[in-house]
Amino acid sequence: MIKHFSKEDILESDSFFRRNLINCLSGYKSLNLIGTKSKSGINNLAPFSQVFHIGASPPLVGILFRPHTVQRDTLENILETEVFTLNHVTPEFYKEAHWTSARWEGSEFEKTGLEEEYLEQFYAPFVKKSPLKLGCSLVETQTLKINETVLLIASIDHIYVEEKGLRQDGSLDLNILESVTVSGLDEYHVGEKLSRLSYAKPDKLPQEI
Amino acid sequence: MIKHFSKEDILESDSFFRRNLINCLSGYKSLNLIGTKSKSGINNLAPFSQVFHIGASPPLVGILFRPHTVQRDTLENILETEVFTLNHVTPEFYKEAHWTSARWEGSEFEKTGLEEEYLEQFYAPFVKKSPLKLGCSLVETQTLKINETVLLIASIDHIYVEEKGLRQDGSLDLNILESVTVSGLDEYHVGEKLSRLSYAKPDKLPQEI
Repeated sequence: MIKHFSKEDILESDSFFRRNLINCLSGYKSLNLIGTKSKSGINNLAPFSQVFHIGASPPLVGILFRPHTVQRDTLENILETEVFTLNHVTPEFYKEAHWTSARWEGSEFEKTGLEEEYLEQFYAPFVKKSPLKLGCSLVETQTLKINETVLLIASIDHIYVEEKGLRQDGSLDLNILESVTVSGLDEYHVGEKLSRLSYAKPDKLPQEI
Repeated sequence: MIKHFSKEDILESDSFFRRNLINCLSGYKSLNLIGTKSKSGINNLAPFSQVFHIGASPPLVGILFRPHTVQRDTLENILETEVFTLNHVTPEFYKEAHWTSARWEGSEFEKTGLEEEYLEQFYAPFVKKSPLKLGCSLVETQTLKINETVLLIASIDHIYVEEKGLRQDGSLDLNILESVTVSGLDEYHVGEKLSRLSYAKPDKLPQEI
C-alpha cells in the first residue's frame, strides 16, 4: 500500500510529524562531528548530517547550517577562527556523538567524555577516536534567502585516515572504518555493502568490481 | 596506523586517486534517481547523491549539480519544466540505477528497463518500483562562484511512500524501505540499524528508544 501526502497534507500535519517525515525524505545522510575552538579558547563539538562533496580539485566540502539552533556555536566559531575539523563517528561512540547536541555549558568534549586531539598545530580540536578526520578552513558562506539556511564552503587542508580503510585507488572502505550514517533526526546505522559497480556504459549492465 | 595527507599531498596526487578519495570523505550519501521530462517529451533518469534537507516548513529539498557532466540533462529539464521527481533506490534495481549514468541517447527508462509511472497529472516521471517517491517543483537556483556548482532548491509537493516504512511519528524506516546509500562514486550499501536515540539532554547519556 502506498500512502500519498499532497503539499496541503504536509503543511496541515502536526509539526512534530512533519519534521520527522521531511528530515527522512532524502535518505541516509553522512554523520560528522564538527570540532571548533573559539578565539577565547572554549572548544565545541556538534553532530552534523549536512556535510557534502563540492569538488575534488581543489578539495572542497560544503555544510548547511540552520540558524538559531544549538549548532550556532559551531558556525560562530568557524566565522571567528576560520578553521574546523570533521570527524567520522563509529558505533563505539555514536551515543556520545548524539549527546554532544544537548544544550551544554562549556566544552562538549569534557562533558561527554570524548577525547580531543590536536594535530599539526591545527587550531581546531579533532576527535581522537575518529577513524577519519579532516582539518578544514573557511572559504566562503552564502545565506539562502528562502529560509536563512547558511551554506558554508571550506577547503580540505588535512586528511587523517586509518590505513586499513584506504584502498589503493584512493577510495575508502566505510564498512571497515565503521562510519555511522544517520536517517531523520535521531536514527543511526552502519553500512552493509552490496557491491562496487563498474563505470556505466550503454553496452551492458554494470558489473561488480 | 594513521595515514596523513596534507593539502599539498592531495593536490599532487594522481587525479583518479584524488577524485576517489575526496568523494568518500563526507561519509555515506543519500541515493536518489531524479526523473525529468523535457518540454519536447523526452524523459530522463539519473542517479544523484547530493540531495539534502533544506527545511520542513515549508518542505524544501536542495540538490547540488556539477556542471558539464552527464547529469546536465537533468538540470536543463528542471530549468525548462520546473518539475522533477526523486526516487529512492533498492537492492532490487541499484545496478539499473547506476546504469542510468551511462551516456545514453534517448530515455534511460527504456534503455535500462526501469518502468516509469505518472501520478496525479504530475509532468515528470516517477520510478514505479521505488518505495519512496517525491514530486518536486523548482524554487530557485544559485551558482557557487568557487567552482560553478549549481545549488537548486525545490519545494516538495507530493510524497508517495510504502506504508510499511512510515512510522506513527512521521519518521521513515529506511531499513524496511530498503533504501540504498552510496559511498564515493560507485559503492552501494544498505543500512543496518544501530538504534534510535532519545532527545539529547545534559543530565544523562541518550537512551535507545
